[in-house]
Amino acid sequence: MKKTTQLKKMLQSSELEFLMEAHNGLSARIVEQSGFKGIWASGLALSASLGVRDNNEASWTQVLEITEFMSDCTSIPILLDGDTGYGNFNNLRRLVRKLEQRDIAGVCIEDKLFPKTNSFLSDHQPLADIDEFCGKIKAGKDTQKDEDFCIIARVEAFIAGWGLEEVLKRAIAYHQAGADAVLIHSKKTSSDEIDLFMREWDNRGPVVIVPTKYYQTPTQTFRDLNISLIIWANHLLRTAIIAMQRTAMQIYESESLIDVEEHIATLDEIFKLQDADELQQAESKYLPQTNRNTL
Amino acid sequence: MKKTTQLKKMLQSSELEFLMEAHNGLSARIVEQSGFKGIWASGLALSASLGVRDNNEASWTQVLEITEFMSDCTSIPILLDGDTGYGNFNNLRRLVRKLEQRDIAGVCIEDKLFPKTNSFLSDHQPLADIDEFCGKIKAGKDTQKDEDFCIIARVEAFIAGWGLEEVLKRAIAYHQAGADAVLIHSKKTSSDEIDLFMREWDNRGPVVIVPTKYYQTPTQTFRDLNISLIIWANHLLRTAIIAMQRTAMQIYESESLIDVEEHIATLDEIFKLQDADELQQAESKYLPQTNRNTL
Amino acid sequence: MKKTTQLKKMLQSSELEFLMEAHNGLSARIVEQSGFKGIWASGLALSASLGVRDNNEASWTQVLEITEFMSDCTSIPILLDGDTGYGNFNNLRRLVRKLEQRDIAGVCIEDKLFPKTNSFLSDHQPLADIDEFCGKIKAGKDTQKDEDFCIIARVEAFIAGWGLEEVLKRAIAYHQAGADAVLIHSKKTSSDEIDLFMREWDNRGPVVIVPTKYYQTPTQTFRDLNISLIIWANHLLRTAIIAMQRTAMQIYESESLIDVEEHIATLDEIFKLQDADELQQAESKYLPQTNRNTL
Amino acid sequence: MKKTTQLKKMLQSSELEFLMEAHNGLSARIVEQSGFKGIWASGLALSASLGVRDNNEASWTQVLEITEFMSDCTSIPILLDGDTGYGNFNNLRRLVRKLEQRDIAGVCIEDKLFPKTNSFLSDHQPLADIDEFCGKIKAGKDTQKDEDFCIIARVEAFIAGWGLEEVLKRAIAYHQAGADAVLIHSKKTSSDEIDLFMREWDNRGPVVIVPTKYYQTPTQTFRDLNISLIIWANHLLRTAIIAMQRTAMQIYESESLIDVEEHIATLDEIFKLQDADELQQAESKYLPQTNRNTL
Repeated sequence: MKKTTQLKKMLQSSELEFLMEAHNGLSARIVEQSGFKGIWASGLALSASLGVRDNNEASWTQVLEITEFMSDCTSIPILLDGDTGYGNFNNLRRLVRKLEQRDIAGVCIEDKLFPKTNSFLSDHQPLADIDEFCGKIKAGKDTQKDEDFCIIARVEAFIAGWGLEEVLKRAIAYHQAGADAVLIHSKKTSSDEIDLFMREWDNRGPVVIVPTKYYQTPTQTFRDLNISLIIWANHLLRTAIIAMQRTAMQIYESESLIDVEEHIATLDEIFKLQDADELQQAESKYLPQTNRNTL
Repeated sequence: MKKTTQLKKMLQSSELEFLMEAHNGLSARIVEQSGFKGIWASGLALSASLGVRDNNEASWTQVLEITEFMSDCTSIPILLDGDTGYGNFNNLRRLVRKLEQRDIAGVCIEDKLFPKTNSFLSDHQPLADIDEFCGKIKAGKDTQKDEDFCIIARVEAFIAGWGLEEVLKRAIAYHQAGADAVLIHSKKTSSDEIDLFMREWDNRGPVVIVPTKYYQTPTQTFRDLNISLIIWANHLLRTAIIAMQRTAMQIYESESLIDVEEHIATLDEIFKLQDADELQQAESKYLPQTNRNTL
Repeated sequence: MKKTTQLKKMLQSSELEFLMEAHNGLSARIVEQSGFKGIWASGLALSASLGVRDNNEASWTQVLEITEFMSDCTSIPILLDGDTGYGNFNNLRRLVRKLEQRDIAGVCIEDKLFPKTNSFLSDHQPLADIDEFCGKIKAGKDTQKDEDFCIIARVEAFIAGWGLEEVLKRAIAYHQAGADAVLIHSKKTSSDEIDLFMREWDNRGPVVIVPTKYYQTPTQTFRDLNISLIIWANHLLRTAIIAMQRTAMQIYESESLIDVEEHIATLDEIFKLQDADELQQAESKYLPQTNRNTL
Repeated sequence: MKKTTQLKKMLQSSELEFLMEAHNGLSARIVEQSGFKGIWASGLALSASLGVRDNNEASWTQVLEITEFMSDCTSIPILLDGDTGYGNFNNLRRLVRKLEQRDIAGVCIEDKLFPKTNSFLSDHQPLADIDEFCGKIKAGKDTQKDEDFCIIARVEAFIAGWGLEEVLKRAIAYHQAGADAVLIHSKKTSSDEIDLFMREWDNRGPVVIVPTKYYQTPTQTFRDLNISLIIWANHLLRTAIIAMQRTAMQIYESESLIDVEEHIATLDEIFKLQDADELQQAESKYLPQTNRNTL
């Protein structure tokens, strides 16, 4: 099944589905091997892993290239956290074409202004004009060649300090403009805003949430609310950070690998994640004996 | 002090020095914050993190771009694991120019053939012709504009199954061709080959080692042998892998973040690693009140 | 019709067909608008236009990116001059995947060594081992997902000073390995070598030629010889060079545009080549009145 | 002399100086060889040559890469047409760092909104807020490490339909914010607006103009007005377009090179523009006899 179709089915199924964050090919592969059905290419995690800030410091083609590496080494769908679409409707059109070529299953765009700021970093960020954002969604949908490619509209109104009315108005407008789902973002530590929204939303279309801040709400609550998709948005990056900090500190202090070696992945695990075996088999098929690296 | 000078001094000091592996901006920053004086931009770790194999599947400009991100967010020197120089002497000349522009302190090239194979993956890999490799070293040294930029010649003869005589012959030739240091690579689980080499080398110049396989040898042994620089070559990547695998598995199975949240880095830690504060200060300096994202 | 199918049909038709060189999006578009049915993305022209030499100084992903721009703004097939495939069979496999994603119709690979040298620049260049090159062709053909994607094998044996026997041996081997056509290259100023080859080739498969040096041979001769495809390999680049040199000189000397203005394309012609109209129409469709740039 | 210093001196000299447009390495080299002292890396020409529109369809890193190729093969300064700086003050800071690394001598930014529109394509384009633009200039100037790197502020107010008062207000503000020069843009077919401005400007700082539309005004007029720098903004591209269109048409119709060959640059001219000789000499210095391509 095409990756786009896989993602679309996840959005439209009656089950609650999950995407796990990845920020490069390696973590994407780990997500797939853990059993997840899809990958969230997080803007925050991607930029942090590159060493830049989540404010469009990396260009959109640099983000695209990382996402291409992620897609090339996995077979489950990737949903790209596409910020604002990196400009206006025309930039989004170009992005959609490039994503489809690289077999990325969908993109999530948010109703903020370019260059963007991470949602959790500041209050009262200005939002995009509703009509302008609806035009962007339409332009994206009109551009895609694969009818299952997904464009998800992320509503930042709660984050920006607006109430339910504004959130609903925007969600409805984006849904009518053709968005395959709306992502309702909240930075409350409870799921009150999500709860509020879902009671009024009336199942107009699939809803995606990102419970980074309200992680203590039991998942069953979201099932009961008819949420379609939960994104675990940055937890592999945060895992890698703390683990690398500890190992770096330990090796720096001990000037030795002895206490580390048994607690980390083996070299063979790296080769396995890289699918080194496939290359060895291919060498025996395509390389004359004398040119082979692998005997 | 310039990054190149920092690295050169590490090679030439009478102390045993250490480089820690990093594979993207984030891990590079972690290496610096842990106290290390320099970074090893590992070819294996870089390719694995991108999701490709260590066989020049990523192009040299894709590797260069990752290294540029790493250099931009750190202030300690980076030594790039430059494989074979990605072609002949002319490709190396181009690489040296590009690395200097991006403030990378040095490059390590190995006497194998393009496209390369990971040293630990197969036996009896063909080696580069000595004269050709010496010409490559000379070309690189003649190209650099900063006299402290370092070119390190990695001798793969032990790995390829040759004995001490070949290793010495090559090390001496590369040293005479202008290499700032030789890296003697071994995949024995003891440091016998290194020991053997150092007794004959007679301190002709700085020697670099990579004790991935012979990690059990106490570091003091290498101090006693007059090794200049030890590279911990892939341990942050291996740490990240095992940690991400565990977290992914746990979230997949529990469908919840509750058991994970307290064991991973906080969001604030990400923002700190991204130096988000600097941007906030810059906004208050350069952005009119009304345009600020951050209040 | 898919671009790959268009190219394949050109190779297999009983007519003599033509490809015209282009080296960026602009020249590609000009080729299409002139009536040509296909584009030759020349390695020499591409590297020269970037400002580097035809010796793999630009990385393969930099070449790929230019080719992607060319493909995005045209609807006729592009055949990429893929040098040696930029490495071994595994590098070619990766290239084929990337080309298919970007809607490039085919790639021509030559039996030389990486890094390559322009065929016209030196004599007696070493050739690839026949078995190794056949393995590369097979690997490429096994990799393509679109059955019409074309892999053309360029035989450099005449150029390297070998006789008909070697050329035939190689052409037959490459044909049997699955090449969709062979390109017989010659740097004679007459078409003698082509003539010689065609008499022995016996129509085993489509033959492509590049009459840069033997341009005086009438095209009818090639029709009579049953050549399938002629590549005009670098003539737009050479046209642009001489024209730009003249204009630059004239403006430099006159310190004025007056004598130039009427002899060059208008600004409107640029906008037309960029398809600016499409954007204007899209703005009126997707941008709210107040956000439009174009009134 | 550093490229940045060369450009700064051109701005500050009492002579009228000239920049000639280039859009890739090849045209940049032609500009240098024609005698010009500097290069204008035109946004319009660059985007058109890539095959996209002048509306930030190419990402800023794609533009940067082309500019890097241009800088690598020339020794005269390049002034990049940097649109709006590709975002806010923070994007400009990043751009300035990247340009300095690549030895680009300066950047010209314009007071429009991202994504930008070509100045000649539409009327009444909204302008940037003055304070916001001044903050951007300051941020850029504070970021540069080389004190001679130039930031030129392009005033689009005449183009957008505003009068002298607005233009003066902006030019003075940008000058005070630290711009090394102001570029006063006009799309009148006479130089009236430039004339008007210069009479009130009172030599507060260097002024740059782009007489694409008012090309008929004699250059002496601009000397008399104390203009510092004239940019011939797109004439090599326009020359290449018309020449390539003619050649493509002719070859398409004649199915032959015979009538073309003598009117275009020779292959040797390409090799000369690529500096192929330098590589040949380097081969004899760095490559053992047996590995040489060139005999």
